[in-house]
Amino acid sequence: MDKGLRDELWGIARQALAAVAPDECIRRHVSLEGEKLLVNGSAFQLPRKGRLLVVGFGKASARMAAALEGILGGRVDCGLVVTAEGYKVPTDRVEVVEAGHPVPDSRGLAAAKRIVKLVSQAEEGDLVVVLISGGGSALLTLPAEGLSLQDLMHTNKLLLESGAKIQEMNAVRKHLSCLKGGGLLRLAHPAQVVSLILSDVPGDPLDSIASGPTVPDPTTFRDAARVLRRYGIWEEVPEGVRARIEAGLRGEVPETLKPHDPVFARGHNVIVGSGRVATEAALEAGTRLGFRGLILTTTLEGEAREVGKFFSALARELVRFGRPVAPPALLVAAGETTVTVRGKGKGGRNQELVLSAALGIEGLPGVALLSLGTDGRDGPTDAAGGLVDGGTVARMRAAGVEPEAALAENDSYHALRAAGDLLITGPTGTNVADLVLLGVKEGG
Amino acid sequence: MDKGLRDELWGIARQALAAVAPDECIRRHVSLEGEKLLVNGSAFQLPRKGRLLVVGFGKASARMAAALEGILGGRVDCGLVVTAEGYKVPTDRVEVVEAGHPVPDSRGLAAAKRIVKLVSQAEEGDLVVVLISGGGSALLTLPAEGLSLQDLMHTNKLLLESGAKIQEMNAVRKHLSCLKGGGLLRLAHPAQVVSLILSDVPGDPLDSIASGPTVPDPTTFRDAARVLRRYGIWEEVPEGVRARIEAGLRGEVPETLKPHDPVFARGHNVIVGSGRVATEAALEAGTRLGFRGLILTTTLEGEAREVGKFFSALARELVRFGRPVAPPALLVAAGETTVTVRGKGKGGRNQELVLSAALGIEGLPGVALLSLGTDGRDGPTDAAGGLVDGGTVARMRAAGVEPEAALAENDSYHALRAAGDLLITGPTGTNVADLVLLGVKEGG
Repeated sequence: MDKGLRDELWGIARQALAAVAPDECIRRHVSLEGEKLLVNGSAFQLPRKGRLLVVGFGKASARMAAALEGILGGRVDCGLVVTAEGYKVPTDRVEVVEAGHPVPDSRGLAAAKRIVKLVSQAEEGDLVVVLISGGGSALLTLPAEGLSLQDLMHTNKLLLESGAKIQEMNAVRKHLSCLKGGGLLRLAHPAQVVSLILSDVPGDPLDSIASGPTVPDPTTFRDAARVLRRYGIWEEVPEGVRARIEAGLRGEVPETLKPHDPVFARGHNVIVGSGRVATEAALEAGTRLGFRGLILTTTLEGEAREVGKFFSALARELVRFGRPVAPPALLVAAGETTVTVRGKGKGGRNQELVLSAALGIEGLPGVALLSLGTDGRDGPTDAAGGLVDGGTVARMRAAGVEPEAALAENDSYHALRAAGDLLITGPTGTNVADLVLLGVKEGG
Repeated sequence: MDKGLRDELWGIARQALAAVAPDECIRRHVSLEGEKLLVNGSAFQLPRKGRLLVVGFGKASARMAAALEGILGGRVDCGLVVTAEGYKVPTDRVEVVEAGHPVPDSRGLAAAKRIVKLVSQAEEGDLVVVLISGGGSALLTLPAEGLSLQDLMHTNKLLLESGAKIQEMNAVRKHLSCLKGGGLLRLAHPAQVVSLILSDVPGDPLDSIASGPTVPDPTTFRDAARVLRRYGIWEEVPEGVRARIEAGLRGEVPETLKPHDPVFARGHNVIVGSGRVATEAALEAGTRLGFRGLILTTTLEGEAREVGKFFSALARELVRFGRPVAPPALLVAAGETTVTVRGKGKGGRNQELVLSAALGIEGLPGVALLSLGTDGRDGPTDAAGGLVDGGTVARMRAAGVEPEAALAENDSYHALRAAGDLLITGPTGTNVADLVLLGVKEGG
């Protein structure tokens, strides 16, 4: 086991995690200067007579609220953020409620109604700060008029099973909800709205993060209907869902907020943290340790085991020919892979990625690969991901685990545990894209 | 359609193909200096009293023989090479025969027997030049004593369906054959043997190219038995196969040639061309055109559509952030992907790779991706691969083709044809790994 290199990669990953910690992200982008709130270079007048409201949703929203209070102090009038179980932290004026995630529940529904009430009362001269982070879509679920939470959940289940793409699912979801697709911004009008966004979606498309409550929605009721028909679930969704979409097609219920809407003049969206920030922090940390670093991509996607093979092909080239950069080399990527579950094992996408790669780097000296869910949770396990090297496969075999069989069973967790290659961080409090680090010390 | 960039990528690919053309490869590594044959810096005395024999097998063997004759002229005494249908070229002293590929046939069997006879007669003082290229394993099939061609073919079919890895299949194949796994070198002893190898196996492992007829075999009869048992086909293989392996386990038939065997002192193996050479030529050609180039890997592997996604993630990063190198950028890879066939369409691994990538780069400006089977044949099609850009998906839709549906049906050929994105070269006469080129002109 190349402990030195492994330790270095883990140190680099920790620095990347620190760079996307919610408080760090808020502090980096937000400051107070006299009576002005500065956000990434733009200045917003603090309310003189009006109120400063804070609302938020997502796994990091409580931490973001606490950091914001640290900057704005007593200037925050009131607020409410919804976060997932276990993600609550102490705050001063902003109330924090916990709700169901990833399956929405009645607590989230009640909180969403209170947020609607709060922002609906906002007036010209008020400032609404919206704290958005990953998981927000499930945590901030408020069905459109005439629909129930069950209607949304059943539709969502059908969409997930249909093979529809995430953009297609979002087109449907936004047209069944009060707050998604710019709905929150519309309710807050005419107050000034500043959204601080911690992105967990690779590439940071604003309209996809937490279903874009404060950004325009390019999709229409026609798109929603087309998606349900294309995947053959139009007849299967609840009657109320069909009725709403049909009403939308007849122009009887309003469309989601469109890009040309003047309401957007009152909204300002800023990405304060993302997988991109994590990769850049990793590159910087690696460079300080003497690695030659390259960021490969911040929109990594694909089947986890296949992505693992690609990384092992990169590792072999680095070891054998010192390409694409001469070692000590660090290749960095962020994104989100997927796992097509075929077996009955336990694992997550990051663990499966590194298990697959371990087979491709078996026996290679001076190589380590780390893959990590930045929220500290990879699949339904207590691990955040895994960290493998050229000796991983041998350690697994010595412990009586057949790595190929484990991979076939989607049992990455037990295989990595046997090799001492699980990464366990506990909840990190943040949630951006997954981070992948390939380090090669010698070769070429 | 970014015709300029597409033309440039295609020009780069053509130069890479030229660099791995069999005659070019032979000329680059072999020369005659007085009475010495120089191969990559090593000198071999031409026979004074003895004979210079040439044998070979593989898709490129006839062209390699012709190029060698061009260098050695009348010094070649005689020879015989086996190639696939349509790959014959005129030669002077070396006879060329065509045989079945990828399914071995009686012509290949007859040729293998003649080659055995030829090299078995070689004596001390003779020089045997062996020309090895991809496809050689099927073209040079000679069952071990007591086995029939049908026995081998049936065993091979079972192995292919079993999920065994290529190294595992080769362990079995080598123990059922006369010539594989160092067998040819043993027959030629005590003559001096020089093997010139055009590698179609990513990473160029000598013992895998054409099943390593002139290199040691690290595997044993025990390994062969273990593989058949592990994949549950021990009871299904022909009785003669089981009997031979059992005899081998009892030490009653000789093992394949092992690394410590003194016979190896008389053998010299040189890779004259490979995917690695193609990538290096592509990098050079790209650099001349002003691209900043990186070779990512020469051992690319994995499911073609997933590899395509990885390349589209690389393309997005290049366009958006100018990483990992500032455009104009050229990323180069070589290897061999796989296609798990689920649909009923027509295509090949290179075509499926670029079709998948086309979906991930839809609408992006200044991007093109090329993937090419260097033998000019990708799957059971008349295309060598495909060349896509940001407009490919729109062109497909305009032609009435749904690219997602085509991908789901493994119908990359028709989808690419509709977009004008097939690459058709005809047989190139060479056969190294597949070549992938990603070009990005603007961005960052």
